Amino acid sequence: MKISAIITLKKDVLDPQGKVIHQTLDGMGFKNVNELRQGKYFEIDINENDPKEAKEIVEDMCKKLLANLVIENYKIIEPQ
Amino acid sequence: MKISAIITLKKDVLDPQGKVIHQTLDGMGFKNVNELRQGKYFEIDINENDPKEAKEIVEDMCKKLLANLVIENYKIIEPQ
Repeated sequence: MKISAIITLKKDVLDPQGKVIHQTLDGMGFKNVNELRQGKYFEIDINENDPKEAKEIVEDMCKKLLANLVIENYKIIEPQ
Repeated sequence: MKISAIITLKKDVLDPQGKVIHQTLDGMGFKNVNELRQGKYFEIDINENDPKEAKEIVEDMCKKLLANLVIENYKIIEPQ
């Protein structure tokens, strides 16, 4: 079963990389961007058929390794 | 309007970073991961109220800057 996790910086944490991309887009003519923030995305193929169980395992992974909870949030996207 | 874009490596492109994370998870006791692939995530706050128009602008950004279409795919997530 494939489960995805999205890791984003918390709202108040500066995102210099996103800012540079925003400026670059602006220079390319995309003038209507208010804000751009970059995050990480993980697609995890897990050997577990119960969606609830799989979600819990991925949540555990996020807490223990994938996300730095001091500055980042995680969101788990369940399989369709 | 906030729109998200997910950039992933194409299926046949090696993902060494994902592989290292996979191995690390394995070493931490998460033994049931078949595959883990890492991607990028962008959350774009765009000054455009028409969802269809906003989606098209973000798609254009993906093609021109955010994704390297030789090795990457993009997926746009419309606002809820």
